[in-house]
Amino acid sequence: MHVGFIGLGTMGREMARQLLEAGHRVTVWNRSPEAVRALVGHGAEAAGSLAAVLDAEAVVSMLADDTAVESLLLSPELLAGAKARVHVNMATVSPALARRAADLHAGHGVGYLAAPVMGRPDAAAAGNLAVLAAGDGALLDFVQPLFDAMGRRTWRLGDRPEAANIAKISANFMLMSAVEALSEATALGEANGLAAADLLDVLTGTVFPGPVYSGYGAMIAERRYEPAGFRLALGLKDVGLALDAGAGSRVPMPLAGVLRDALLESVAHGEGDRDLAALGESARRRAALPRPDRTP
Amino acid sequence: MHVGFIGLGTMGREMARQLLEAGHRVTVWNRSPEAVRALVGHGAEAAGSLAAVLDAEAVVSMLADDTAVESLLLSPELLAGAKARVHVNMATVSPALARRAADLHAGHGVGYLAAPVMGRPDAAAAGNLAVLAAGDGALLDFVQPLFDAMGRRTWRLGDRPEAANIAKISANFMLMSAVEALSEATALGEANGLAAADLLDVLTGTVFPGPVYSGYGAMIAERRYEPAGFRLALGLKDVGLALDAGAGSRVPMPLAGVLRDALLESVAHGEGDRDLAALGESARRRAALPRPDRTP
Amino acid sequence: MHVGFIGLGTMGREMARQLLEAGHRVTVWNRSPEAVRALVGHGAEAAGSLAAVLDAEAVVSMLADDTAVESLLLSPELLAGAKARVHVNMATVSPALARRAADLHAGHGVGYLAAPVMGRPDAAAAGNLAVLAAGDGALLDFVQPLFDAMGRRTWRLGDRPEAANIAKISANFMLMSAVEALSEATALGEANGLAAADLLDVLTGTVFPGPVYSGYGAMIAERRYEPAGFRLALGLKDVGLALDAGAGSRVPMPLAGVLRDALLESVAHGEGDRDLAALGESARRRAALPRPDRTP
Amino acid sequence: MHVGFIGLGTMGREMARQLLEAGHRVTVWNRSPEAVRALVGHGAEAAGSLAAVLDAEAVVSMLADDTAVESLLLSPELLAGAKARVHVNMATVSPALARRAADLHAGHGVGYLAAPVMGRPDAAAAGNLAVLAAGDGALLDFVQPLFDAMGRRTWRLGDRPEAANIAKISANFMLMSAVEALSEATALGEANGLAAADLLDVLTGTVFPGPVYSGYGAMIAERRYEPAGFRLALGLKDVGLALDAGAGSRVPMPLAGVLRDALLESVAHGEGDRDLAALGESARRRAALPRPDRTP
Repeated sequence: MHVGFIGLGTMGREMARQLLEAGHRVTVWNRSPEAVRALVGHGAEAAGSLAAVLDAEAVVSMLADDTAVESLLLSPELLAGAKARVHVNMATVSPALARRAADLHAGHGVGYLAAPVMGRPDAAAAGNLAVLAAGDGALLDFVQPLFDAMGRRTWRLGDRPEAANIAKISANFMLMSAVEALSEATALGEANGLAAADLLDVLTGTVFPGPVYSGYGAMIAERRYEPAGFRLALGLKDVGLALDAGAGSRVPMPLAGVLRDALLESVAHGEGDRDLAALGESARRRAALPRPDRTP
Repeated sequence: MHVGFIGLGTMGREMARQLLEAGHRVTVWNRSPEAVRALVGHGAEAAGSLAAVLDAEAVVSMLADDTAVESLLLSPELLAGAKARVHVNMATVSPALARRAADLHAGHGVGYLAAPVMGRPDAAAAGNLAVLAAGDGALLDFVQPLFDAMGRRTWRLGDRPEAANIAKISANFMLMSAVEALSEATALGEANGLAAADLLDVLTGTVFPGPVYSGYGAMIAERRYEPAGFRLALGLKDVGLALDAGAGSRVPMPLAGVLRDALLESVAHGEGDRDLAALGESARRRAALPRPDRTP
Repeated sequence: MHVGFIGLGTMGREMARQLLEAGHRVTVWNRSPEAVRALVGHGAEAAGSLAAVLDAEAVVSMLADDTAVESLLLSPELLAGAKARVHVNMATVSPALARRAADLHAGHGVGYLAAPVMGRPDAAAAGNLAVLAAGDGALLDFVQPLFDAMGRRTWRLGDRPEAANIAKISANFMLMSAVEALSEATALGEANGLAAADLLDVLTGTVFPGPVYSGYGAMIAERRYEPAGFRLALGLKDVGLALDAGAGSRVPMPLAGVLRDALLESVAHGEGDRDLAALGESARRRAALPRPDRTP
Repeated sequence: MHVGFIGLGTMGREMARQLLEAGHRVTVWNRSPEAVRALVGHGAEAAGSLAAVLDAEAVVSMLADDTAVESLLLSPELLAGAKARVHVNMATVSPALARRAADLHAGHGVGYLAAPVMGRPDAAAAGNLAVLAAGDGALLDFVQPLFDAMGRRTWRLGDRPEAANIAKISANFMLMSAVEALSEATALGEANGLAAADLLDVLTGTVFPGPVYSGYGAMIAERRYEPAGFRLALGLKDVGLALDAGAGSRVPMPLAGVLRDALLESVAHGEGDRDLAALGESARRRAALPRPDRTP
């Protein structure tokens, strides 16, 4: 298939390479040219303009956030000239944007799918992402070969594109809730003579198997927050997406409010570029740990 | 070993049976006599008095809460006459109680261990509990055969008994945090056209494997809150233990505060005897779900 | 002075009338023409275009929110042609907007002042508003006669316009905090046999004199939420401004998070057009009040 | 009237003196003898024992907390021998204690009234307290002369004693909510270039007249937290009373949860002996203020 690919950041460049390796023809566009050159070295074609990318059969975009999508792609002029059958937005954006985008695309005869992904750059480089996809079923069938190239599994989440964005936002919200809970429990333990490694060993050996608890738990227990697998500042953006989605659909999310405050406090203390696990420091700081004596 | 066993509730009676099956001599005491009779049918001896139980080599207690332990066992008169080498408190109680108990026992030459367990009655009936134990190492060695009879694995969490209580309280706090996060995410999904089963499928297939998310998630998705595996009212008690432990050691736990409010709201609405998963209803009620139209 | 006035809503029309009554020449513009006609009947001139309003010496705007200001007034083309010395934005908008607006105006040689007001339409109709003003001192001196016509008192809050927006946002945040506290306390009283009127009588007779507590308190005590003096949905918008301002400057505001959730719950239950005092219903609903029996 | 008075702390000693000055015969008891001697110097009689105090016509107690009342006065033996017609508990205690106390007193034919007070020691010394009284009307009539001697006004809050405790707890909760709101708003202002004194001037000049906002506001603005008029650690105790009362009657109080966390954080940072206004420091600490540059 001829695929247009927009957005060659740390995730996008790996995803585009997977499409190339699967034998697709890929025309790429990126704001800065370095990433384009690298992809061309792997067999991609450089688009002369953004409009040119939209001449492919399917367009995949992987941009940073709502603002980037809005300013680059949600232009009536651009869409009016598009020949693509479908635009697959794989970024983590708001459901509100998904609704606006779907309406605008429909008005210009271009299909719109939401297919945000879960997984870090190394998973993207291995074609191992989890793809959360929603929108028109026929269009999903059409681009399934692309999902198969980029991901290990695709979940189909109904015919409303925004449902996929909600799923992604929810997964990140739940991940951050788990990290905050780990942080509070670890601080409680530290203040009461329970070693963080012991607590973690109990948790992962009983109710919480799986990489989230063991991975973040180890970082919190060791107070090791770099390198950042999931930047804390990005988490603050994501919890904002959850809160905005909640506000937009009138769903109070008190846990998300607590997360926002803890993340904001962390960013205020200069920890925005650390890993999300630095929430552990925030919990310790609130409790004024460590303390000279351990006895409560 | 000759073991005194105090407290034959739904958990205690199964634990005592495991001790009997492992060949220990077990003298039992319970406030109501029915449970005693049942255990005697399985080979236990009925104690003539509470004091008589304390003549065994080791005493295990599995009482309902701090108040029960305090009123029954933390009596100077009772402890002064005890011949037991050690008292193992396996209930979920506060670290503050553990400290008082350890001091009081020490004053009368009786060892005190905290060894709360994780697992439901069916796990207890299969000798399959997780035992979280803390206190003096020699005493832990002494009662390890008892732990082996009742549990599948024992974690040793240091020489301060209260550390084990903190671990148990933390595990329950984290479990409840996960259920509340599931509840909020599910309500967000429902308000935005994402089916609960789809969301759950994504979560358990990506970041959250393991029985907690799949088990509670299914109950929330199906709005099936009975029979109660973990009574919601018991969760409210447990989050109170977490908040009190936090207050006692000056550790703010904002997530626990959110849990307390959600649980309290559930109990106010008559859901105290439902499963903890009924937190899902609380999230739906706050969002006034279901709504006549799904569009936010 | 020749004043251009943009935005003749329930507040703006009264403020413009006060300017007319004080003898100023006022050229008005409004999106819908009815309000313009009414003002012309009181001596105003109707502007032929938005650009024409900006030919006055000073321009006052009183628009609904950030979006309205952004789309109508923050246009480089419009400002490039403006002859006005200063634009006074008297609406409740975000500090972020104030910063952007001040920069943009400066680039086109137009002064920018923020002067949000406190008071309801009846206070506006009586020239009795409280004016919270910030920006360049000489410009503030220049428009002080306008403030004197519209308000009973002007506070000068420094030379950074956004400080005035922060003051307004903070005042509304504090007002809403007081109403939520009243709501929670009243629900606690109701559940414990303390009459709301009695509680209110104690509070206003001891620590909380003043119209906020007595006014909102009476509405909560009587469960009378209409007519809305301060629409609850508007409160939700305002707490959003507070949270966004906090996020923008990395200041966690946990109380504001609680307010947002309570307001969101109220809006979900169809109470957005009631008075802010309907927060009292939200607190009662969470507690499942009234209950068949009063005994806790 | 012959009055027995128990508890001569900083409040109690002044209240007892007011009774003496009003011409009542006062027999006093206190755990430590110094305060007794001082009162005897003003005309009081020293009780030979606690039981002897209960021989007066009316007994007033002003003890530190639930535990003190429970251990000293809620003894069946003591009450069985009491000749007093009524015991007036003027301390800030829990409604749960009030219920237990009322039942126990009734069982021994002694009336029980709750009459907590508002006001600091200087108000007590001037007979200027606000008395919040509840219980049997005839008994309230009987002790009204005592209230008149100690207070400037008495509120009668129904015939259930605990209602008065709820009123006192609610008033303190609302006071603390106001201080936390001031703290968050002041931090927001500081991070955005709005001087604390300016914000305070706006607030007290518009919606929040009265001593609470001006008094605590000035302390927060000036970051002056000593001497403590209302010790922060005492506030933590009081918010605990509110949360426990809420839990006991199944009333979620999310604002109280936020207060508890902020107070706990303050105590963890060594500010328990400062004034409640030190909540302002907590808000600043969370926001990492002051910052090298003021621009957000």
